[in-house]
Amino acid sequence: MTQFCESFALDFTENRAYCRPVIAPAGAAHPKLRGMQVNYDDIFARAIDRLHEEGRYRVFIDILRNKGAFPNARCFAGHNGPKPITVWCSNDYLAMGQHPKVIAAMEEALHDVGAGSGGTRNIGGNTHYHIDLEAELADLHGKEGALLFTSGYISNEATLGTLGKLLPNCIIYSDELNHASMIAGIRNSGCEKRVWRHNDLAHLEELLAADDPDAAKLIAFEGVYSMDGDVAPIHAICDLADKYNALTYCDEVHAVGMYGPRGGGITERDEAAHRVTIIEGTLGKAFGVMGGYIAADKNIVDVIRSYAPGFIFTTSLSPVLVAGVLASVRHLKGSSEERDAQQAAAAYLKQCFRDAGLPVMDSVTHIVPLMVGDPVRAKKISDILLAEYGVYVQPINFPTVPRGTERLRFTPGPAHDEAMMRELTQALVEIWGRLELEFKIAA
Amino acid sequence: MTQFCESFALDFTENRAYCRPVIAPAGAAHPKLRGMQVNYDDIFARAIDRLHEEGRYRVFIDILRNKGAFPNARCFAGHNGPKPITVWCSNDYLAMGQHPKVIAAMEEALHDVGAGSGGTRNIGGNTHYHIDLEAELADLHGKEGALLFTSGYISNEATLGTLGKLLPNCIIYSDELNHASMIAGIRNSGCEKRVWRHNDLAHLEELLAADDPDAAKLIAFEGVYSMDGDVAPIHAICDLADKYNALTYCDEVHAVGMYGPRGGGITERDEAAHRVTIIEGTLGKAFGVMGGYIAADKNIVDVIRSYAPGFIFTTSLSPVLVAGVLASVRHLKGSSEERDAQQAAAAYLKQCFRDAGLPVMDSVTHIVPLMVGDPVRAKKISDILLAEYGVYVQPINFPTVPRGTERLRFTPGPAHDEAMMRELTQALVEIWGRLELEFKIAA
Ligand SMILES: Cc1ncc(COP(=O)(O)O)c(C=O)c1O
Ligand SMILES: Cc1ncc(COP(=O)(O)O)c(C=O)c1O
Repeated sequence: MTQFCESFALDFTENRAYCRPVIAPAGAAHPKLRGMQVNYDDIFARAIDRLHEEGRYRVFIDILRNKGAFPNARCFAGHNGPKPITVWCSNDYLAMGQHPKVIAAMEEALHDVGAGSGGTRNIGGNTHYHIDLEAELADLHGKEGALLFTSGYISNEATLGTLGKLLPNCIIYSDELNHASMIAGIRNSGCEKRVWRHNDLAHLEELLAADDPDAAKLIAFEGVYSMDGDVAPIHAICDLADKYNALTYCDEVHAVGMYGPRGGGITERDEAAHRVTIIEGTLGKAFGVMGGYIAADKNIVDVIRSYAPGFIFTTSLSPVLVAGVLASVRHLKGSSEERDAQQAAAAYLKQCFRDAGLPVMDSVTHIVPLMVGDPVRAKKISDILLAEYGVYVQPINFPTVPRGTERLRFTPGPAHDEAMMRELTQALVEIWGRLELEFKIAA
Repeated sequence: MTQFCESFALDFTENRAYCRPVIAPAGAAHPKLRGMQVNYDDIFARAIDRLHEEGRYRVFIDILRNKGAFPNARCFAGHNGPKPITVWCSNDYLAMGQHPKVIAAMEEALHDVGAGSGGTRNIGGNTHYHIDLEAELADLHGKEGALLFTSGYISNEATLGTLGKLLPNCIIYSDELNHASMIAGIRNSGCEKRVWRHNDLAHLEELLAADDPDAAKLIAFEGVYSMDGDVAPIHAICDLADKYNALTYCDEVHAVGMYGPRGGGITERDEAAHRVTIIEGTLGKAFGVMGGYIAADKNIVDVIRSYAPGFIFTTSLSPVLVAGVLASVRHLKGSSEERDAQQAAAAYLKQCFRDAGLPVMDSVTHIVPLMVGDPVRAKKISDILLAEYGVYVQPINFPTVPRGTERLRFTPGPAHDEAMMRELTQALVEIWGRLELEFKIAA
């Protein structure tokens, strides 16, 4: 596993223990610029070349899903027109993006109010739908208020960035596997940052104890870590927060809609929502649409609403999307059918993989990651699956995961049936043999 | 005009000459923290109180537009159920959010592929619609490529932030009136920044000339400045860029769809698009939907696509939105009817205001700003207009504009007719008299 980033380190990975920038010897990293004009084209071309050399230049696959027939889709890559495929890596975990209630609500809003909101929340872009959805999300998490953003990414970035500026001399404690959007927000806050080893409470406490007891503190972590499928020990983190007078911030992006009796996430499942200061979520994964939000007490929501540039200075979510999410959240509050079916599918696929000796990683959630350990092979397996089996699963490479832990990440849902999962397993076994990859003897 | 920001300066305004943070005397700004536990509730409550004291706490008005009848809408504020109003401050400038082609395209996509994309562009969230729209936008600006983002805000923030990191020791020259999202991106880039006085070419050149000729340089500005309605001297800026070997970045958010024979913005109108390195736009204003983008040469687009966290780590735009934008961009490429009608409406309203002695500000574009000069009065006028005349126009206050230049900002469009504009003028004249505000004698 190579232990350095790009020398022009893009610091969204700075959090990660596996990705510490190596300080390049002076003058080595860049062509000498002094005394010669900057050649911009050359700089950009080299940045791209570097990705090709490392085998991690990304080519986006061109697909269209077939509504009503998810996980089926059409692939436009190559020739001969669209080709049918099965999607195995969507984060529309519960297929809510295809749910008749969601589609109907969006259609109604489209005809009732039109396409876009036409403005920021403050200037013309606030609608009744936005207000209703914020109330619904506040209720989902048992919080006094909620605030919508255009994405989960910007909700993390804007909230953490603004909180860190509002709290004088705040120190932020960040789990090393936190998502890029949290890292961006923490960085923008300008706060001092301490990175704790993933889910390591002793390390977190060590760091908390070493700092000034009177400094403002914020502990940031995720409910479900989406590339490994493990969960945070939320109560234990909150115990430490109580002990050291820290606020807590939990990204529940991969858990909202999916865990807890009403889909409130791991914080609901573990009955810890009331202990977490700020819960953040997305509207684009289990809820099937697009957008992000935070839920917290009234004053915190009001502060972020009033001070966060990423909330204030942007056109608000389209009312069409908001109407769809409203239907989705309301449905999943009352129905556990989709959640149960998805958990069953994930358990079945993990078992199939294990029985076949495929190197499925430990995961206590709906995520089914298969370790490959090298970007070129991961891409190769993915290419064969698509070309020969009509199976679409994207290889996951650096910087999304550490180098040397490249993997395939499957997200079976309620619409993937057992026959499909058995076929997928057979395909993988065939490819594993063809590429002479190692099988794992079941324990 | 008060010349300081919050002492816990939220630096999205740091660019602005009118908003330099004053360094508070040590210990004065915050309660002494040493030796006492942080009281988070108190900090948040004080941040909110401050806004109330200054008369700029924002209350979002709760409305729903009536599709097919824009600018008419329903207001849910107060009692007695929804009340009809006319919207005068929407940035859906051309009413494309209500256009039958846009609605039909969104409905079709909703039924064909569903609500959300289900993933990032790299992992399951790329669709044929996204690829088509990027080609359409590249063509609109005569560029080799384009890249979609979830908002104009994040397109500015992510692109400027990433460019600044990729270009070693880059210096960014930023017009002092640049939008908060550009300021955020420039700040995140970590580059040295020089702020040039608004549209002041001599000042820009002075700054360029003072720096190392071999340093990488980027000049960032807007096509149309949306709060004043003036435009940038694009050719002259590009001349300086040529002379000093700088890249150029133009935010055309308030101009795309609206200027130029095909809606390519001020850069198209002035035949300067080929001279600007990166053109940035929104899909949420004249195009009527939601989202943002950049257009540039292939390598730059590829670099941003490959390195910008704000592009990589987020669920892609809903295909429903993308389909709507495709229809909107295609329509406005071929039709100047909406643009012409909007320009005519803006000219007529400015004339009405001038004739009536109302203090309309100089604006060479579709924006019609009326100077008030004080946040409390601006809010008062806006409140009377809504309560007594069913006219919705939001007061614009700090930090969106400098303190002391608080204003009302009208955006008449093709759907506001002359009778409505005359009535609006009469209402304003009545209120101006009632509040004993000054009339301006026409020159
Ligand atoms: C943990 C985590 N947080 C936040 C996000 C961003 O959410 P969104 O896709 O709504 O921008 C993602 C993924 O996209 C994520 O995996
Ligand atoms: C000049 C300027 N740039 C960028 C933006 C952000 O665009 P969007 O609303 O699509 O986020 C805005 C306003 O919202 C703006 O006025």
